[in-house]
Amino acid sequence: MTYTVADHLLDRLAEAGVRHLFGVPGDFTLAFLDHVEAHPSIEWVGCANELGAGYAADGYARLGGLGALSTTFGVGELSAIGAVAGSYAEHVPVLHVVGAPTTAVQAAGRATHHTLGDGDFGHFARMTAEVTAAQAVLSAETATEEIDRVITAVLERRLPGYLVIPADVGEHPASPPAAPLPQHPGVTDPAVLARFRAEVAQRVAAASTVSALADILVARLDVEAQLHRVLDEGIPHATLLWGRRVVDESAPAYLGSYVGAASSPAVREGIEQADLLIMAGVQFTDLTSGFFSQHLDASRTVEIRGEHARIGDDDFRPLAMGDALDAVAEVLAATGGRFRADAAVAASHPDTSGANEGALSQTALWREVTAFLRDGDTVLADQGTSFYGMAGHRLPHGVVFGGQPLWAAIGFTLPALLGAALARPERRPVLLIGDGAAQLTIAELGTLLRHRIPAVIVVVDNDGYTVERVIHGLHEEYNDIARWDWTALLAALDPTGTAVGVKASTVAELTTALTAARDASGLTLIQAVVPSDDVPPVLRDVAAAAASANARH
Amino acid sequence: MTYTVADHLLDRLAEAGVRHLFGVPGDFTLAFLDHVEAHPSIEWVGCANELGAGYAADGYARLGGLGALSTTFGVGELSAIGAVAGSYAEHVPVLHVVGAPTTAVQAAGRATHHTLGDGDFGHFARMTAEVTAAQAVLSAETATEEIDRVITAVLERRLPGYLVIPADVGEHPASPPAAPLPQHPGVTDPAVLARFRAEVAQRVAAASTVSALADILVARLDVEAQLHRVLDEGIPHATLLWGRRVVDESAPAYLGSYVGAASSPAVREGIEQADLLIMAGVQFTDLTSGFFSQHLDASRTVEIRGEHARIGDDDFRPLAMGDALDAVAEVLAATGGRFRADAAVAASHPDTSGANEGALSQTALWREVTAFLRDGDTVLADQGTSFYGMAGHRLPHGVVFGGQPLWAAIGFTLPALLGAALARPERRPVLLIGDGAAQLTIAELGTLLRHRIPAVIVVVDNDGYTVERVIHGLHEEYNDIARWDWTALLAALDPTGTAVGVKASTVAELTTALTAARDASGLTLIQAVVPSDDVPPVLRDVAAAAASANARH
Repeated sequence: MTYTVADHLLDRLAEAGVRHLFGVPGDFTLAFLDHVEAHPSIEWVGCANELGAGYAADGYARLGGLGALSTTFGVGELSAIGAVAGSYAEHVPVLHVVGAPTTAVQAAGRATHHTLGDGDFGHFARMTAEVTAAQAVLSAETATEEIDRVITAVLERRLPGYLVIPADVGEHPASPPAAPLPQHPGVTDPAVLARFRAEVAQRVAAASTVSALADILVARLDVEAQLHRVLDEGIPHATLLWGRRVVDESAPAYLGSYVGAASSPAVREGIEQADLLIMAGVQFTDLTSGFFSQHLDASRTVEIRGEHARIGDDDFRPLAMGDALDAVAEVLAATGGRFRADAAVAASHPDTSGANEGALSQTALWREVTAFLRDGDTVLADQGTSFYGMAGHRLPHGVVFGGQPLWAAIGFTLPALLGAALARPERRPVLLIGDGAAQLTIAELGTLLRHRIPAVIVVVDNDGYTVERVIHGLHEEYNDIARWDWTALLAALDPTGTAVGVKASTVAELTTALTAARDASGLTLIQAVVPSDDVPPVLRDVAAAAASANARH
Repeated sequence: MTYTVADHLLDRLAEAGVRHLFGVPGDFTLAFLDHVEAHPSIEWVGCANELGAGYAADGYARLGGLGALSTTFGVGELSAIGAVAGSYAEHVPVLHVVGAPTTAVQAAGRATHHTLGDGDFGHFARMTAEVTAAQAVLSAETATEEIDRVITAVLERRLPGYLVIPADVGEHPASPPAAPLPQHPGVTDPAVLARFRAEVAQRVAAASTVSALADILVARLDVEAQLHRVLDEGIPHATLLWGRRVVDESAPAYLGSYVGAASSPAVREGIEQADLLIMAGVQFTDLTSGFFSQHLDASRTVEIRGEHARIGDDDFRPLAMGDALDAVAEVLAATGGRFRADAAVAASHPDTSGANEGALSQTALWREVTAFLRDGDTVLADQGTSFYGMAGHRLPHGVVFGGQPLWAAIGFTLPALLGAALARPERRPVLLIGDGAAQLTIAELGTLLRHRIPAVIVVVDNDGYTVERVIHGLHEEYNDIARWDWTALLAALDPTGTAVGVKASTVAELTTALTAARDASGLTLIQAVVPSDDVPPVLRDVAAAAASANARH
């Protein structure tokens, strides 16, 4: 087999750590898929549909660093474009590779299938440019340079990219990469860093309390280790709900989630009243800030962003987040533990224990799920009662918890779990999702089963879109959904019979099911039945703010 | 309740014949949905996901004249955008109504959920402009004029349109429509029509044989009655596979489907050798023309298009298709039946009967399905073995047969059947779909069951994407799919237990199942098991041409 453009692309993906390519075949991608099948380290993961494949690639990138997705021109790529937009919104690096008609077919400009029939083959690339950071429509002459350019941009900017490969271009002879992709050199100016360190030291010296607030960009920019150096100094800290994964919630000085005015009093005081607040990678969004009800004093804040920092009115750039965090850690280390607050913070956590009997409620559900979690779990919680129900509960050490609170596409987490599980197979995959949400992407349950992912899936069965109900239309028919028998559905998609489906309507049934799931070798799906108007408290606050924002004229 | 912009929109949709609005709720659409619930003649049809809702609205428009779809900003609309693009490609009028954040929230430019978080609320409208014929982002001041403009354009151009309604604008007080929407005046210039009629008369007088070839635009432009006046003159005629619904295939002078070089000899001769060919609403696409292998002599053709016609080098415009067809019918009527060829054509049809025993094959499957059909059926055949398997079979009088051969999104027909069934509930809905295709959109099977649509669904169970297999990768893993138990799946999505699922592996089992389906009151799903490498003959020809097009450098 001649080495071709397709091989070059696959070798670059492999170099960047990609071991799985998600997608749905189409006739314009089939020759490319031959190269995938032949590649020594990349495995094809055929999904039920393209939106599912896009979400899976996104979930893969969230755990594995880079995701990749292959679809066919027009019909395939547009079905996945919402997933790519979500990756853009949530700063997730995914490469979308689209197989297109040959250069000759495009030049002829005729009514080709999977096009609008108008001879314009540029519609979809123009659409995708709105939601990707780098794009290329490959031609034989410049294909490998363009591939390298787009992948480099995706890796550096941690945002999605887009490559269109006409079927003939993929088969064009090419050279293997002569050298690795260029490493991002890092932006920090040493003089700026020195000035920043000095200013932080002066602020710290003058403060009587120092706290930290971190968010998702710490994970996306891969500087969690540097953040942990700061937090290991024992200062009180919180994250936004988006960024729960960047901290160890079992740490004694962990305050909880900061949700603006909807935060618990201890979190609010610890963050808003600190003499000095170290803020790292924070992006306030409506749903994670109680609709921008955060109350922070910029003059008392060291705000560390991707490539610069601010202290009061002073701007420090160029300064990489990791370097800024290292500087803060050094300054704190030199204080001899003056800001350590572990014991006081640990005592402030609310008691979330409760009775192990009676009908299942949202409160009991999330309490029992939290108790079930263990070091090494990947937990994806869909944007609804699952994500907000877990907000009040502290996660054990070693859990990676994720959701999608900015893009907030319900149903996202089910395919995303497939990707996350394949990216990090040593971690136990746990999915928390509502019944309405699961219906959006249910076909990928079949893909999870096909790949024998030993996931634990909790489907919250409450007959509809509860998150919408509490925003507007509590008893309106438009918030109802079709009723499904979830455990029977599981069996139908699992002809090999290795999965276990259980319906739990009481706390006792739930704990029994969760206990059994600990030892299951296959996938477990727990249909957790709760009342349709039962809502976790954090969601009630967020929903009230959303309703108010939508009503404001 | 105050009369608002939302009410005006709904009244305009109702005026245009819309009785069902498909979609998925989102918090930016909930207030709008209150108006839908309150509307006297429009019913909300909540779908499992937005792509399904978009396909359903498209199917509704194909049978009912205009479809409408409601989704929420960003996440919702982008999940449906592939369906809207398909409506554009296939000339189907669908209005996509998107609920957006309020004007005030947009003006604040903050990181709002369902956006990219960059403060730019225009990304999705710019994307949608590529695949719609008319668009508006509504403001309170001009909302009703803009609504009227976009709906008028959708109806006149028979293409999709797009309306973004910020939540506050929908609630803005408005006036009910003062007058009906303007009627399309018709473009025909009487002098051009007279010249056209004279030229047709001269051509007809000189011809010894006259045939007709019609296609889908005859249906989209609603001029089937005028076409039938022409065909009632008994001239030999064919359609492209896209436009099968525009003719009565039981008519004696019906030749069959014209597929370029892949046509049967009788069809090819009847169309390509005619002294004069009347062509109406024909658009050649790769998959319906055997990859542009049509062989037609423009000098012997009267080509009637939407708003003009051509005879040889002579162009006649402006001339509406209906007026041109009427002129042709008048000319033919004056010939005293000189071109009537009913008996000769009727005798040329191949014998498609076969043995009623043994394991099920593609040949037997489509033969038995055809025998099952009756006057008044709506038949949707997915783009694969179903669509091409039915190509060789003549449909009874009164059947509306449809597929999606240009956009060619597999899985389209399952949700489209929901729309088609609600648009024309007096017609029996029949769906023919492959297992791979059905997995793409399976969630809407639940919506079909929820609405108790008495559909007959044949799922071709052959373990994968057979249409792709025959193009490339016959035994490659990427053309395999997850194995599902389709009849168990049906039961899981149908807690009321009114549906019947049957697995048929032999011809006898299939005919028994079809016979039972005739009298079923609920939905019937037949899992028709055929070998994975068994392919209908027309598909084999099309696939070979597709493979060759993809390989050409």
